[in-house]
Amino acid sequence: MLEQTAIVTLLTDFGVTDYFVGAMKGVLLRKPPQPTIVDLTHDVPPFDIESAAFTLLAAYKEFPPQTIHLAVVDPGVGSSRRPLLGVTRDYFFIAPDNGLLSYVFEREAANLRVYHLTNEKYFRRASSETFHGRDLFAPVAVALMHGIAPAKLGKPVADYAKLHSLAPARVDDERLAARIIHIDRFGNCVTNITRENLSDEQIARGAYLQSGTREIKSFRRFFADSENASDEPFAYWGSAGFLEIAVNGKSAAKQLQLASGLRIEVIDAH
Amino acid sequence: MLEQTAIVTLLTDFGVTDYFVGAMKGVLLRKPPQPTIVDLTHDVPPFDIESAAFTLLAAYKEFPPQTIHLAVVDPGVGSSRRPLLGVTRDYFFIAPDNGLLSYVFEREAANLRVYHLTNEKYFRRASSETFHGRDLFAPVAVALMHGIAPAKLGKPVADYAKLHSLAPARVDDERLAARIIHIDRFGNCVTNITRENLSDEQIARGAYLQSGTREIKSFRRFFADSENASDEPFAYWGSAGFLEIAVNGKSAAKQLQLASGLRIEVIDAH
Amino acid sequence: MLEQTAIVTLLTDFGVTDYFVGAMKGVLLRKPPQPTIVDLTHDVPPFDIESAAFTLLAAYKEFPPQTIHLAVVDPGVGSSRRPLLGVTRDYFFIAPDNGLLSYVFEREAANLRVYHLTNEKYFRRASSETFHGRDLFAPVAVALMHGIAPAKLGKPVADYAKLHSLAPARVDDERLAARIIHIDRFGNCVTNITRENLSDEQIARGAYLQSGTREIKSFRRFFADSENASDEPFAYWGSAGFLEIAVNGKSAAKQLQLASGLRIEVIDAH
Repeated sequence: MLEQTAIVTLLTDFGVTDYFVGAMKGVLLRKPPQPTIVDLTHDVPPFDIESAAFTLLAAYKEFPPQTIHLAVVDPGVGSSRRPLLGVTRDYFFIAPDNGLLSYVFEREAANLRVYHLTNEKYFRRASSETFHGRDLFAPVAVALMHGIAPAKLGKPVADYAKLHSLAPARVDDERLAARIIHIDRFGNCVTNITRENLSDEQIARGAYLQSGTREIKSFRRFFADSENASDEPFAYWGSAGFLEIAVNGKSAAKQLQLASGLRIEVIDAH
Repeated sequence: MLEQTAIVTLLTDFGVTDYFVGAMKGVLLRKPPQPTIVDLTHDVPPFDIESAAFTLLAAYKEFPPQTIHLAVVDPGVGSSRRPLLGVTRDYFFIAPDNGLLSYVFEREAANLRVYHLTNEKYFRRASSETFHGRDLFAPVAVALMHGIAPAKLGKPVADYAKLHSLAPARVDDERLAARIIHIDRFGNCVTNITRENLSDEQIARGAYLQSGTREIKSFRRFFADSENASDEPFAYWGSAGFLEIAVNGKSAAKQLQLASGLRIEVIDAH
Repeated sequence: MLEQTAIVTLLTDFGVTDYFVGAMKGVLLRKPPQPTIVDLTHDVPPFDIESAAFTLLAAYKEFPPQTIHLAVVDPGVGSSRRPLLGVTRDYFFIAPDNGLLSYVFEREAANLRVYHLTNEKYFRRASSETFHGRDLFAPVAVALMHGIAPAKLGKPVADYAKLHSLAPARVDDERLAARIIHIDRFGNCVTNITRENLSDEQIARGAYLQSGTREIKSFRRFFADSENASDEPFAYWGSAGFLEIAVNGKSAAKQLQLASGLRIEVIDAH
């Protein structure tokens, strides 16, 4: 058992009106050591694996070492989708093998082991084959809290599902091909551009973003900027470490007709 | 005091935009021993007691013994509706006397004592008579956490409110009258049919469901079944132990015009 | 460190679909002593500071002494809005300086110290300047849990932002000018009238409410009153200690066209 209270985070597309989340929490709390459970969100748009992958990426590192991140989105129960356990230096990740852990795995590639969860001894004796969150994922989290070694829970795998890479791709000397990876509830558009892809020097010498025929040349340090209340779109470094595109008091996604997956180019004609 | 952390679950129709749930949690946490509080849901459709009764039924057994399940839906404050405490072998249930505990009580009938909560000594000194969740139900949960005996909290009663029985009724040799008891947020329709009412043998020899003039003859093991992507409705054993009716990727409730309470017949012309 | 588990309440307009709330909780749980975190609500209507101020006012006193109430609504990051810490006899309050703490401060005026949070040593080393909830407010809550004295976190201030006073104003011998301070999700309208402003004796001798040309002369003890099912609006003492205006089974806000901030008069022509 762990010295401090174990923490389990939950990320699902179950919503909060049914008994699904409550039942999972009951399983997690059933025996000591009882974890602290944190809801990341249960409102992932149904089947939107990219959105879930981003949300997990943006939050997981805030939690203390040993935290178990449990994510269930579109588990495809009954199909061939495998349940996975990812182990990094600091965290455990439990999720279906559908790309949900893709971004985290890419960032943690240097310290990553991935297992296909096969040891039914640690699953719930099934009353149903339709609710893996309660009957498989939560029981595996309990096993980890009891100190069961990951290697006892399944078999190492390397061929897990991957979404498109988080890293933008170089097109040519002047252009980098990036994309929208998430749109938040305010309509701000999160790109996969980081400070490693676009430096302050580049911005200072005139680098800009291009979405279709639209150019975004305004960069701001803060979101709120009362001196500049126009509805010109602007870019800023968002709190998840990525460049975001916004419009003052409006939805940039609507105004610019942006959606997850759409291409954004960084142009630096230095 | 309990050795392990007490657990209190909450099930209400209060929503999560107002201060109601927060105020109840404050009362629960006011003094040691501070419980772990789990939200089952606060989004019960207003006054939908059947839906709340099902949600509680589907989740309560996942929690460890001694868990206190506190449910407030349509409490009818100021009317003649009595506050109840139900005690089973493993759990405590606190709710208004409106049928909300009906399904749980039916399942736990062998080990059930029910009390009308009358001892005002354990209520909050009222600042208001309109918020029983905060001023009566939560304080009674606190009293239970402090080890106060149920018999000190009120008087035994047997005439508590009951919804229709969970058990389907036999119509004749070939037909069983069941009903829809819940519709989940995906539009899947949960019936009150269990494996005790409908065996694998019966299904194998051709038993089927009838809703109005519509027959449902397809039974599946899993919800997801990629080989079969038609929009024919099908039945499967849901994670709460009941037979459910679904349509691939659609709302069965909408497509079949099903609603809570509607009759579903099991036809077995063996 | 505190003997009992620390409690942190959260009140934001972040919604629960993004990673924002999860990230704040990760920071709060990062190191022992790990608090119990209670969500008051994350669904404050964007920028509705009055609504947030009321919600906090209605809930804060239910929690045990030493509770840290952390509220982030319209923080205006990057603008001149200051982060504040309010210290009362029993509680800590952390919020932006935009009036959110106004009602609590008015009620706690006798025991209040307010600080402008300036000591960056206790902030998160910034990865972003757009997310004060995670990078400033939550770290300050952690510092308080570790026993850091408020005076070490910032400088005393007295010129913090204030909403309109909670106290109704006397117009003349017969009239008191009050207002709607909150509308709950059922459409019930909470006024700023307390029992100190309107006694049972006054009601008994015929005092009533006036909203525009509409008079509300019916007072009830309970919300539910099955004998009286008309749709005449009525007033009752709500659970937050204020007089509320409601209509049986309907939204009083809609029926009477009431909104936050609208004037309500108490007429007592004794």
